[in-house]
Amino acid sequence: MRLGSDARVAMVGGGQLARMTYEATIPLGIRMTVLDADPLAPAVRAGAQAVQGDPAYLASLVDLARMGGVVTFDHERVPIEHLRALEEAGVSVAPGSHVAELAFDKAASRRRLRAAGFPVPEAVAGATASDVVAFAQGAGWPVVVKAAKGGYDGRAVEVVANEDEASDAAARLGPNLVIESFVNFDAELAVMVARSSTGEIACYDPVSTIQRDGICIEVLAPAAVPARIRSQAMDLARSLATTFELIGVMAVELFLVGDDLIINELATRPHNSAHHTIEAAETSQFEQHLRAVLGWPLGSTELRVRAAVTCNIIGAQDGSDPLGRLRQALAIRGAHVHLYAKTARPGRKLGHVTACGSTLGEARTIARQAAAILSASEPTASCADSREVPT
Amino acid sequence: MRLGSDARVAMVGGGQLARMTYEATIPLGIRMTVLDADPLAPAVRAGAQAVQGDPAYLASLVDLARMGGVVTFDHERVPIEHLRALEEAGVSVAPGSHVAELAFDKAASRRRLRAAGFPVPEAVAGATASDVVAFAQGAGWPVVVKAAKGGYDGRAVEVVANEDEASDAAARLGPNLVIESFVNFDAELAVMVARSSTGEIACYDPVSTIQRDGICIEVLAPAAVPARIRSQAMDLARSLATTFELIGVMAVELFLVGDDLIINELATRPHNSAHHTIEAAETSQFEQHLRAVLGWPLGSTELRVRAAVTCNIIGAQDGSDPLGRLRQALAIRGAHVHLYAKTARPGRKLGHVTACGSTLGEARTIARQAAAILSASEPTASCADSREVPT
Repeated sequence: MRLGSDARVAMVGGGQLARMTYEATIPLGIRMTVLDADPLAPAVRAGAQAVQGDPAYLASLVDLARMGGVVTFDHERVPIEHLRALEEAGVSVAPGSHVAELAFDKAASRRRLRAAGFPVPEAVAGATASDVVAFAQGAGWPVVVKAAKGGYDGRAVEVVANEDEASDAAARLGPNLVIESFVNFDAELAVMVARSSTGEIACYDPVSTIQRDGICIEVLAPAAVPARIRSQAMDLARSLATTFELIGVMAVELFLVGDDLIINELATRPHNSAHHTIEAAETSQFEQHLRAVLGWPLGSTELRVRAAVTCNIIGAQDGSDPLGRLRQALAIRGAHVHLYAKTARPGRKLGHVTACGSTLGEARTIARQAAAILSASEPTASCADSREVPT
Repeated sequence: MRLGSDARVAMVGGGQLARMTYEATIPLGIRMTVLDADPLAPAVRAGAQAVQGDPAYLASLVDLARMGGVVTFDHERVPIEHLRALEEAGVSVAPGSHVAELAFDKAASRRRLRAAGFPVPEAVAGATASDVVAFAQGAGWPVVVKAAKGGYDGRAVEVVANEDEASDAAARLGPNLVIESFVNFDAELAVMVARSSTGEIACYDPVSTIQRDGICIEVLAPAAVPARIRSQAMDLARSLATTFELIGVMAVELFLVGDDLIINELATRPHNSAHHTIEAAETSQFEQHLRAVLGWPLGSTELRVRAAVTCNIIGAQDGSDPLGRLRQALAIRGAHVHLYAKTARPGRKLGHVTACGSTLGEARTIARQAAAILSASEPTASCADSREVPT
């Protein structure tokens, strides 16, 4: 816990979340260093100080910690035992290893969440195709097979419907697997919660998330759900933050099944499902994360607008850079474009667009239109095959 | 005029306006270089690329221009003849020398505005105390004496009431003076207008500005004025932008006298009177300036909120850094703090706080409270001696 004049943050990873966190450091005079193997990582391009190294190695993490400040995270691809080693050496790590494990290790997460009484899908740890088949014989096909560590944006998560698919998935993702029952959800929601090292908690309104190929392509804020679902989701997020003594922000991704909420994934860091908070909320998730890890008072989570929608910018099939279409996208009135300065590749998440409006429909039209231009895709196609919450 | 993938801006001066402009470049992937004598100028601390040099020298300006991109401005302390030289050498300068002169040279400004039929105070160019006295014999005391070039934040502007004060003022500010009749205004307003190199114009709602000791200490958005004054002010700003072929943003500072508007000052750059646009408007003045100088479509100027108030953070008498009081200020719910990373000195503008609200009163209470903490002053004292527009 540090005071203003010595406020420093050391972030593991220099990707887009670090980049946007860096943007939030500037007005508050916070100094930020990032650890990344890429000397031109998105946050470094924005101006963050860089330590070059691989977060998989403890030596690199120690190099980062030596720069001073609370150690925090842009991604989950860090061995939990290294976090414990840093903590034992007296480094301030936020979120701490105990809560970070809920995001960094899916096998441990399922086990610990269930033990603490939180609603999670039926799940087992496993290693081989026969473990998958054995689980499916009890739970029924299809089942979900995940690598316990290192997945993101739908990578390392597969829905398998039979023994052949089980073999393929186990070969690709094993040997450290989580095998889960498939949840036939009505909608996907996400709640962003923050807890400061002082114990203060602040929770944003739930959002609806729309995924395609495992990547979140659209976020609608607030989620069009009844008030009791809203309260239930926020209570669940607060309860997780308290139970596991979160420090920082945490995205709680939820399945809505009838009137029930089931935890899908936790991300103990800023998250794609809360990018709209930059424009639409009193405090952005990035500033909130900084406040929380520095032990500062949390900011208001209120929305400034009636509705906001974020659409991701996905790399075009021809590999072209969205920068070349920026001017055209900025002609869409109300489109707020955020580019991540990442090398364009087909299917890669390269940025996002947020639009505010008096209704979700109004905001969505604007955000989709601009994101489609930047992604060089058809706006209407972006959600054609998605299950949507009616708005 | 450049397209997205090669978007570059070269800003003369690396102060707080350059710093906040730099913040706006990040999401849009614009590359920005600043020219400043201080290698740790506010914009450089934020991450902007730096060219070290003195903007008073043409050689330094040429060094900046060589970095590529449109040349634009954080301040007015640049000789107009150097801008003309850059333009003649084929450098893209925005705003151009023709319109920048309206801000950079107060004598030329008064003369040209009057010639074009715009409402300005009665004014003459002069050099000595006897010029001041001669003007006052016609116009009546007090009169306003200004240095024609280089003033800002009330520096180099004095209200003189008699011959003795005239001698002092002429000695301090001469020999290149503008001598004006004193305008006994009812209120001060400011309008921010943008004009793109494509000719597109966008104008923000007028704001009320409150000055103390020549420094703007409080900005209220929107200004509490009748609709016809609002329209009149916006029409005036648009007309100035069109007449002088502005490229970029321009702050038009106005005196309201009864139902009449008189032009006080023009600033052909982002301006203190529009900092609230970061949180409160669909497009911040900084993004708008970038769009305008790059020839991109302008953004919406609509307010997202009913009301917003900005209070400046002024260096405390004990010279202490506001960073040491940041944590306390962030406990004020709804206060958006922007620190400029400038060395703390008594009376120096070190940052600002913006608060949004459903009324000006609500927003003002929050902004004043947080700014007072950061300025180590009494919140109620900040406007005690100011003429205010009732809210």
